[in-house]
Amino acid sequence: MSSVSYEKLEFLFHPHSIALVGITTANPDHWTRTFLDSLLEFNFEGPLYLVNPKGGEIAGMKVYPRLEDVPSSIDYVISTVPARATPGLIEESARKGVKAIHCCAAGFGETGEEEGIRLEAELKEAGQRTGIRIIGPNCMGIYCPKSRLSFQSSFPRDGGPVALISQSGGNTTNLINKAMLRGVRFSKVISYGNATDLNESDYIEYLTDDPETSIISLYLEGVKDGERFRRVVRRAAEKKAVLLLKGGVTEAGARATSGHTGSLAGSESTWDSLCKQAGIIRASTLEELVNALVTLLFMPAPRGRRAAIIGFGGGASVLITDIFEKNGLKVPALPQELRDEIRSYTPIAGNILRNPIDYSQSVQSIQNLTRTLGIVSKWDGIDFIVSFITPSQASPGSRRLMINIVEGMLEGSRAGAKPIAMVIEPSVIPHEAEDVMGLIQLCVSDGMPVYFSYSDAASAMNLILTFAENHPGKLYG
Amino acid sequence: MSSVSYEKLEFLFHPHSIALVGITTANPDHWTRTFLDSLLEFNFEGPLYLVNPKGGEIAGMKVYPRLEDVPSSIDYVISTVPARATPGLIEESARKGVKAIHCCAAGFGETGEEEGIRLEAELKEAGQRTGIRIIGPNCMGIYCPKSRLSFQSSFPRDGGPVALISQSGGNTTNLINKAMLRGVRFSKVISYGNATDLNESDYIEYLTDDPETSIISLYLEGVKDGERFRRVVRRAAEKKAVLLLKGGVTEAGARATSGHTGSLAGSESTWDSLCKQAGIIRASTLEELVNALVTLLFMPAPRGRRAAIIGFGGGASVLITDIFEKNGLKVPALPQELRDEIRSYTPIAGNILRNPIDYSQSVQSIQNLTRTLGIVSKWDGIDFIVSFITPSQASPGSRRLMINIVEGMLEGSRAGAKPIAMVIEPSVIPHEAEDVMGLIQLCVSDGMPVYFSYSDAASAMNLILTFAENHPGKLYG
Repeated sequence: MSSVSYEKLEFLFHPHSIALVGITTANPDHWTRTFLDSLLEFNFEGPLYLVNPKGGEIAGMKVYPRLEDVPSSIDYVISTVPARATPGLIEESARKGVKAIHCCAAGFGETGEEEGIRLEAELKEAGQRTGIRIIGPNCMGIYCPKSRLSFQSSFPRDGGPVALISQSGGNTTNLINKAMLRGVRFSKVISYGNATDLNESDYIEYLTDDPETSIISLYLEGVKDGERFRRVVRRAAEKKAVLLLKGGVTEAGARATSGHTGSLAGSESTWDSLCKQAGIIRASTLEELVNALVTLLFMPAPRGRRAAIIGFGGGASVLITDIFEKNGLKVPALPQELRDEIRSYTPIAGNILRNPIDYSQSVQSIQNLTRTLGIVSKWDGIDFIVSFITPSQASPGSRRLMINIVEGMLEGSRAGAKPIAMVIEPSVIPHEAEDVMGLIQLCVSDGMPVYFSYSDAASAMNLILTFAENHPGKLYG
Repeated sequence: MSSVSYEKLEFLFHPHSIALVGITTANPDHWTRTFLDSLLEFNFEGPLYLVNPKGGEIAGMKVYPRLEDVPSSIDYVISTVPARATPGLIEESARKGVKAIHCCAAGFGETGEEEGIRLEAELKEAGQRTGIRIIGPNCMGIYCPKSRLSFQSSFPRDGGPVALISQSGGNTTNLINKAMLRGVRFSKVISYGNATDLNESDYIEYLTDDPETSIISLYLEGVKDGERFRRVVRRAAEKKAVLLLKGGVTEAGARATSGHTGSLAGSESTWDSLCKQAGIIRASTLEELVNALVTLLFMPAPRGRRAAIIGFGGGASVLITDIFEKNGLKVPALPQELRDEIRSYTPIAGNILRNPIDYSQSVQSIQNLTRTLGIVSKWDGIDFIVSFITPSQASPGSRRLMINIVEGMLEGSRAGAKPIAMVIEPSVIPHEAEDVMGLIQLCVSDGMPVYFSYSDAASAMNLILTFAENHPGKLYG
């Protein structure tokens, strides 16, 4: 059964030729152009055709008035035609031998209005009659870097082990943008909107057997067939790590999902117990989902909850320690003999040498920092190390120093016995943002997990550790 | 009694002449130079003198070998000499008629080592004997923009109603940096470290009667005299809004405070009940403290918890609604007649018109957005409006659009019957950071509250509203 469902959808991610139907010729900034720009910038290898009744030319490419004017066969259509023209396009596509169509337009059942509901029923019926599989409507479609398929030119060209199935196009883009910065890369991403034909269960079944995917992340507003979804997601969670962000968990949120993707959200307690039973990692915000992905991907299996905190700033050390402890992590005191060892070459004034270790006043000596990192890393009283940098507090002259610290941590991470995570506070002040970006890139290129706040780091680690404790052998098996 | 304690410390914030003792002549990037740079850039109006045994010159200013070589009288010393030289400096200062000294150096009691403990006792004794008041040691001292006194040249030149008393220099800088971006301005800030002489209670007493301060924020790791502190802070909270971030609320955090400022942290339950009894707003992270300040300052008294959410992005609208409801706020459904009114000029495809209102597809028409804002603002089913922008999702061409949205919100805020808050997601991608900064500045210059995430906005509003409900008439009286 598994390989059947896998085979059934594999073609979606490997189109041979694509027609962009409904692309605007007049305005190069129009949103319909994004799809073309993305495919061109990703160097999609198959033939690309443009279709718009007005004809003409875009970027040296001929625009065909109708799909049937395209001189060769097409297996995949990206449609940006309005809702009312969509059912008709399915008929046209069938005559062209199209196998799948991504319908971008909104204005279907999610409007709650009679016309939209009727159009969605027509669309569904046309799909069933012609056998064309429909992604959407009301969505952004597929991002599959390996196939050079993307709906945003800014997404990474390189792939990775994370799949994302999302009912919201905006949340998909936002999640990829946030996650890519932190080193997360994707196998297959599907923004699928109203799920008129293909739905969450179809995609989950496919990804469960997809050898390129080891983590399946979900943004769901509702499910089409609760019974099937339960079965499918349980099997997925047996084989892979599954993470869920559920939109519409409150009454008002559920009202929003019905206007957004026409979804019936289901009760919070149902979702909660499903996640517990099936072994799904539950995130409650988009940021938490990204932080969980970063932790799963880049935090090598810590054996437990005991952290050493090595940072810069006494007050900051106090606050991060409180936050870690409040999130169920432990910051045990450094044994006296290790304190003495560090004290033998580290001045005490302005430093704290207890765990947290505040190395503020000795930060100029990267040798000493690395030496201390080595001592702490070998201590069997801890399971992992966390460090932090606050670029907004650094003087303009300290850019080199911050880079030195990160390089010291990376060296420690490569050499050390314990995983190291880094908290780098972001800044929107442009020259500080540049520094932060540089530091993040340094960490990420070396596979180090980066978080944007103490709370983010602590709660993500707590989430993953709690899950691992409740499901022994499942993660970090 | 009140005016006595006020008069007693008023001189601290109005020094006539300052000597910087211990400033390094050799290295212009040395941290001791920061104090001079800040005073020069703030145009401190009184005479400034530099003292270092090596003599010489800095920036065209003579460096005197000893304090007694300075040709005129000095009432305020900023000392960056090491701990061991500090008690002697008090004696020298007494001979010069100095009234107050800010001791920057660490290496006193907080080290837990015999020498540091002895030096701190000597320092205290010298202060008592000479009558010189000591700020610190182990701290950054005073920032008082009205007196052109600062320890960072990047701090705002203009003042405001917020005072900050902080035991950590790093947290002080970090808090000011984060808060200034969001429009928070300060009357008096004191980073006071180990509190050997002047302590938290002295500063709180002073600020309680300070006409320039209406909000007192505290970062405390411990208190010197619990009995007095209770009395003093209770009186402060009767007269003004008092906010507290307590460092060292966990056992490991308390261990860190003892290494940081030599403080005994006290039990969490003691602090919790003190805050409840005295009417103090309690923040649990530095970010939460900043968000609470922004809410108090810029969110005009909402009458209740009912929000209208007007934003851009369906999935984002779902998530922000969930987050608001989970934080005890209400997002009530828009009545049918208002939906019909908005629907009469707003296409439904790609929009949600229910509350949340997702205006994604109509964002090009700022007239329509403003019109909708007007309709929603007059609806008596809500108490305030929240909007949001995610610049990382915007295309490079949409900068103008984002500015239009913010300008529409500002216009709505000025004209409207309801307060409006804005969530602007930050980005560390440099060109996006620039956009974000521009949008923040637009809002802040018009007195609009800005938050960096849905969760930040919701939890800050919940914090302040809960406090206001529990203490009727105290805020928004």
